[in-house]
Amino acid sequence: MPQYTPPVRDTRFVLDHVIGLQQHANLPGFETASPDVVEAVLEEGGRFVAEVLFPLNQVGDRQGCTRHDDGSVTTPEGFKDAYRQYVESGWATLGNQPEHGGQGMPHSISVAFQEYLISANMAFAMYPGLTHGAIAALVAKGSPEQQAMYVPKMVSGEWSGTMNLTEPQCGTDLGLIRTRAEPNADGSYAITGTKIFISAGEHDLTDNIIHLVLAKTPGAPDSSKGISLFVVPKVLVNDDGSLGARNAVTCGSIEHKMGIHGNSTCVMNYDGATGWLVGEENKGLAAMFIMMNAARLGVGLQGLGVAEVAYQNAVHYARDRRQGRALTGAAEPDEKADTLFVHPDVRRMLMEGKAWTEGLRALCLWAALQADLEHAAPDEADRERAADLIGLLTPVIKGVGTDKGYEVATNAQQVYGGHGYIAEWGMEQYVRDARIAMIYEGTNGVQAMDLVGRKLAQKNGRAVQAFFQMVATEVAEAKGDAAAADLAGRLEKALGELQAATMWFVGHGLKNPNHVGAGAVAYMHLMGLVAVGLMWLRMARAAARLKAAGEGDAGFLEAKLVTARFFGERMLPDAGALRRKIEGGADSLMALPEDAFLAA
Amino acid sequence: MPQYTPPVRDTRFVLDHVIGLQQHANLPGFETASPDVVEAVLEEGGRFVAEVLFPLNQVGDRQGCTRHDDGSVTTPEGFKDAYRQYVESGWATLGNQPEHGGQGMPHSISVAFQEYLISANMAFAMYPGLTHGAIAALVAKGSPEQQAMYVPKMVSGEWSGTMNLTEPQCGTDLGLIRTRAEPNADGSYAITGTKIFISAGEHDLTDNIIHLVLAKTPGAPDSSKGISLFVVPKVLVNDDGSLGARNAVTCGSIEHKMGIHGNSTCVMNYDGATGWLVGEENKGLAAMFIMMNAARLGVGLQGLGVAEVAYQNAVHYARDRRQGRALTGAAEPDEKADTLFVHPDVRRMLMEGKAWTEGLRALCLWAALQADLEHAAPDEADRERAADLIGLLTPVIKGVGTDKGYEVATNAQQVYGGHGYIAEWGMEQYVRDARIAMIYEGTNGVQAMDLVGRKLAQKNGRAVQAFFQMVATEVAEAKGDAAAADLAGRLEKALGELQAATMWFVGHGLKNPNHVGAGAVAYMHLMGLVAVGLMWLRMARAAARLKAAGEGDAGFLEAKLVTARFFGERMLPDAGALRRKIEGGADSLMALPEDAFLAA
Repeated sequence: MPQYTPPVRDTRFVLDHVIGLQQHANLPGFETASPDVVEAVLEEGGRFVAEVLFPLNQVGDRQGCTRHDDGSVTTPEGFKDAYRQYVESGWATLGNQPEHGGQGMPHSISVAFQEYLISANMAFAMYPGLTHGAIAALVAKGSPEQQAMYVPKMVSGEWSGTMNLTEPQCGTDLGLIRTRAEPNADGSYAITGTKIFISAGEHDLTDNIIHLVLAKTPGAPDSSKGISLFVVPKVLVNDDGSLGARNAVTCGSIEHKMGIHGNSTCVMNYDGATGWLVGEENKGLAAMFIMMNAARLGVGLQGLGVAEVAYQNAVHYARDRRQGRALTGAAEPDEKADTLFVHPDVRRMLMEGKAWTEGLRALCLWAALQADLEHAAPDEADRERAADLIGLLTPVIKGVGTDKGYEVATNAQQVYGGHGYIAEWGMEQYVRDARIAMIYEGTNGVQAMDLVGRKLAQKNGRAVQAFFQMVATEVAEAKGDAAAADLAGRLEKALGELQAATMWFVGHGLKNPNHVGAGAVAYMHLMGLVAVGLMWLRMARAAARLKAAGEGDAGFLEAKLVTARFFGERMLPDAGALRRKIEGGADSLMALPEDAFLAA
Repeated sequence: MPQYTPPVRDTRFVLDHVIGLQQHANLPGFETASPDVVEAVLEEGGRFVAEVLFPLNQVGDRQGCTRHDDGSVTTPEGFKDAYRQYVESGWATLGNQPEHGGQGMPHSISVAFQEYLISANMAFAMYPGLTHGAIAALVAKGSPEQQAMYVPKMVSGEWSGTMNLTEPQCGTDLGLIRTRAEPNADGSYAITGTKIFISAGEHDLTDNIIHLVLAKTPGAPDSSKGISLFVVPKVLVNDDGSLGARNAVTCGSIEHKMGIHGNSTCVMNYDGATGWLVGEENKGLAAMFIMMNAARLGVGLQGLGVAEVAYQNAVHYARDRRQGRALTGAAEPDEKADTLFVHPDVRRMLMEGKAWTEGLRALCLWAALQADLEHAAPDEADRERAADLIGLLTPVIKGVGTDKGYEVATNAQQVYGGHGYIAEWGMEQYVRDARIAMIYEGTNGVQAMDLVGRKLAQKNGRAVQAFFQMVATEVAEAKGDAAAADLAGRLEKALGELQAATMWFVGHGLKNPNHVGAGAVAYMHLMGLVAVGLMWLRMARAAARLKAAGEGDAGFLEAKLVTARFFGERMLPDAGALRRKIEGGADSLMALPEDAFLAA
């Protein structure tokens, strides 16, 4: 049966030696994150998710959620009690600001814990995960009264939150929203409409659910410029903070879906529900993007989290399962067969898993540090640079993190052979769960368009230039470093492909914007290769440095060096192919009339 | 809800203009396959699967199979009646030889029909599909008496067949088999052991099920050289052909699995069941490979079949769903939004689906022609060449066909956005169903090892040289052809990468066979790109020829030319990356001790 061990040692390596958490002790909250505290949080948090949440992962998949005739929803057996423990142990408050009752830990610590949470039980992790996004929107755009009423109880985990964007006729194109918000005399609004695919829309884990809902006020522009954001509690909250009457919002049904069965995906019916405007009228999209950007990084982390647990199990299986003999002659002649580990192609799949999970972990934790720097770096230029970099790389982390997460999970399943297809082994669930992350919070194609259509051009390309500069500088430094020179050379080549592809877009995009759209996903993956390649360069250099100093576990450091080499030899070659695909442009994609797509 | 139209026009194009079925009218059976007959078979066969089997596809997934306490298994609602119609309409006998009651049609016609059958209902198609493999083994290795007793009723579809290889402790490594065959006094054997993952092992579609079972006789060598093949009917057959006593073989349980729920995947318990040796003692593996090779081509076809139906649905959805605006300005300003079809990245996913399904279809039908030529070409050199080519490309068709089939199905699901994840739309089922094809009949890693470890070296590389020669000749011819010159140049480059990778194996494999194993899957995909690229070259040239002659549907032919260009621009660039990965060798894969794979 599946097992999971939180990769605390690897997280620590990244925090200490790749992003240099301790060098930022001047940032607010970072002073509390001493090495001892970080170690304790990761160890205890890891133990909690492994012992309490991981055992519920297959149960949640098998049972799913149940909607009752009165519209209430029951989560799988054990979820409610586990959530209570999660809240009581204080895990909900880790990264939130102290003024809202949070522990104010650095974002990178919170993200490290969230990775473990997702690995242990992705469907469970979505309940608190969506609450984080809702808190972010209320903190950024809510009135002081709204913040006081909702945020502390959401931070503590007493209440949960949701994002209500999608409707039957609109997903990506929010301008098509039909949900209406009619003003009431008391300044509130009556919200009416149907929202679909609402994760955690209804459940039994908390006494109240705070819905953040996009809707249109009367006379609003008939486009995405006419959308407003409303806060609509499931149960109305009295002025003294106690719970009042049930609001007119109900779960109409829950979806039968491919995976994440433990999370309730709801159709939510708003039938004149009372809501309050968050921020300004018609500015709802901007408010929603605050939730969305946080959520997108969280979804990228889902790619990593599911890949990690799937990968770990594949490693165990490859060590236990005996089948065939090493090509170089029997490795264990006294056994009837060698383990799967002797087979180069099994090792290839495992090394890919190792290279992507460790590389994505470094990238996610690095991004989390940028999120802190964006808000709290003392120097304005540092804040801007961090904001630029995280804005640029958010779609890359979401898109590449989830595409590669799915690939790693699929390969891990493949290591099991036929057993990987059987439910009881647990591997097929990882593939089904991982699949949604490529779709929601904006499909990966939408992420790629955000990258090439918005992020590249913003502020005259300042962000992408900063990224290129960062990579080029570190490549130049690393070239003199024997342990990293080979990877540095390969990364420099990949960076060259990325820069050439960028210039190709500049040259061809004005003539025909479809040329940019046609290469968007390939470009996103090319940037992902360079970004994760940079992380491997840093990891290799750190490992070499520690090894030379005689610090750390020699085997662990050697594995970093070998995996960095593997990433360079086996992953970076895709950069050239991606560039050539981009340079194919849009013509052969756009030439055919729609009828010609059906050869029947 | 999902829809499916058999791509008869495209099949006809391939049969008529790419593999030139009519030019082989001198082969046995081909004389009956006049254009009219082919048209009728494809049209009627397509109508049958679309009307009778396709409506049962989602039902089968939802209901699955049910095992009862007595070990009997009920298939999903409607399967039994549909199977009866399938048999009564004669579809079971299409490609079988007339001496066994078959219609003796060319293999390519039978394969074309099987593609439709799989697209309509993959889980259903596996019941007759496994029977085909069992027939092949009995025809090749069974005694005249065994053939007379079993084959005609298996050909007619009255009885079905299975392959029993896998046991709990052995999948790929059949030398580990523990099932025993003790000789009885009457020349039969008592078979005892447990087989797992037996597709269609027990069901209610037929009165008898003929199991072909690998087992070991007393004193047999303790390796794959000690395996014998036995025929073990579920119900013993009397000398007059009537059914006798129930044999001691029962279904112990059915697996709960990721997909193909409509097919019963059984644990089969042999408890002294009566069986008869097929072929020679200890030569069971060779006999099993006859079934296996037929089955591997069939599994490659599953990749194509599921990809095709998933792709078709994605095309329909992209035409219907309105979301966002074209990058070049509103395509339909009077509508509130344009269709998904205007978005370049949606078109990219659809074009990839089109390029792979049409390319794989051509490759599968071409391989089917080689299977006929292998047995029936008048000239011995032609028979040998066909045998070489199909032997070489069987693992490529299985491995690349199923990897790309899964990718196309996953992309088709992606086109649907969130709706793709919801069961009622049907797309997630295609992904779950397609996944098994990468695993069974030898994982795709095993296919790659068959290719590089056996097929490349056989007869001093005669097969791969013939393949290189075939591609090089057609590339040279096509270069003077305006419509195909660009693709020819790109294919020549990809062929160069494949040849270089082959030489790299030759140079490095002797030093360390792990270098070959480490590049095996990349090599298989590189060969797949060249093989499918060759098919696109042929299709482009045929389309240009017909267009110039003013024959055929201009839109259909233009689509072939555009898709050929797309394949060259967007798929062939991977060839260079694959070669570079291969040339990375085994060192970075094999360097780490097993412990180092766990970073926790």
